[in-house]
Amino acid sequence: MAEKEISQAVISRLPRYFRYLGDLKDRGVERISSQELSELMQVTASQIRQDFNNFGEFGQQGYGYNVDYLYTEIGKLLGLDQKHHLVLIGAGNLGQAIANYVNFERRGFYISGIFDIDRELIGKKVRDIPVYPMEELESFCKERDIDIGVLSIPKTAAEAVADRLVKCGVKAIWNFAHVDLNVPEDVLVENVHLSDSLMKLSYNINRYEALKKQ
Amino acid sequence: MAEKEISQAVISRLPRYFRYLGDLKDRGVERISSQELSELMQVTASQIRQDFNNFGEFGQQGYGYNVDYLYTEIGKLLGLDQKHHLVLIGAGNLGQAIANYVNFERRGFYISGIFDIDRELIGKKVRDIPVYPMEELESFCKERDIDIGVLSIPKTAAEAVADRLVKCGVKAIWNFAHVDLNVPEDVLVENVHLSDSLMKLSYNINRYEALKKQ
Repeated sequence: MAEKEISQAVISRLPRYFRYLGDLKDRGVERISSQELSELMQVTASQIRQDFNNFGEFGQQGYGYNVDYLYTEIGKLLGLDQKHHLVLIGAGNLGQAIANYVNFERRGFYISGIFDIDRELIGKKVRDIPVYPMEELESFCKERDIDIGVLSIPKTAAEAVADRLVKCGVKAIWNFAHVDLNVPEDVLVENVHLSDSLMKLSYNINRYEALKKQ
Repeated sequence: MAEKEISQAVISRLPRYFRYLGDLKDRGVERISSQELSELMQVTASQIRQDFNNFGEFGQQGYGYNVDYLYTEIGKLLGLDQKHHLVLIGAGNLGQAIANYVNFERRGFYISGIFDIDRELIGKKVRDIPVYPMEELESFCKERDIDIGVLSIPKTAAEAVADRLVKCGVKAIWNFAHVDLNVPEDVLVENVHLSDSLMKLSYNINRYEALKKQ
């Protein structure tokens, strides 16, 4: 694959392509034209062709794209052929929902341990992954090559736990707490702010109602 | 507030402003300058001034912004002064995490009922909200003014349930299933695709490692 810089706009569309190509692959589809993919994904065929051109010669004029090849190459670009080892902090409902998400391993993400302060949860297992007390976080990470921390805890505790994860040497934090984290520049943060998403929905409902009245 | 059209880029930044202003308000801060807010939020002060100028006269030169007023006005713009009634489909871990999110009501979102196909969950309550069998969805919605459906179910079931919600007359769907829904144009969809977020994180780790090696 060509080693040229790909724009953030293209990158942000890759997971969606990957998702659709995975579904096609599961359905046994071997080839697909940009036109067919366009109808399926509701984006223009020219957008698709432009996006895929970033990765070199994926399709041949008139023959369409090889679904399996494209799926594999986009997966590589997304780093899904790499293995990552995670610790999940917070074994509440959201934490358990995340830990139960079986596609994790298919994407190369392995949850090594779950941590919580709740004595009632410690010692239990979520899909065979044990829940440990928070005091053991540092020693646990020291013994293993943990590169990602997942935060599914209230925002009041998030900053302090993020600091501890950074000291443990994680490269990235997947943050579900409703707060923006202050971490060193070399630690990546990917936020999932559910409340922001809810507000966006609310804005759009409001706006749509106002437009209808016009 | 001025009734002019505000760009989607500004809109997408509003929930974050709202979140920070809410925190300031909770901490008893009455006024804040664009410079202070800039340092707090790590965006430029000129960006903040430009964004807030969309809403008319929020601040006076040299006096900073009135936190409470700004919080209230942005809240109105986001439609958070309106009441919305929701049904939540899927009482698994993710559904329970969503139902337990108490800030919902503070934002005007009231979950009227939770629905599931799992007989073991039916009849139970999540934070006083009962779990009903799926067969009762239509009659439940008919008796109440439900305007939003929340989908926290596997993707294989999502499309069929979304169709039922549309027939029930919901205006919007907050979709946590890993699939893009096909709904009529007048039904709004806000997606939370956790797997897409995970893949973005994975891409960025990969990219960052590659850059370090250069």
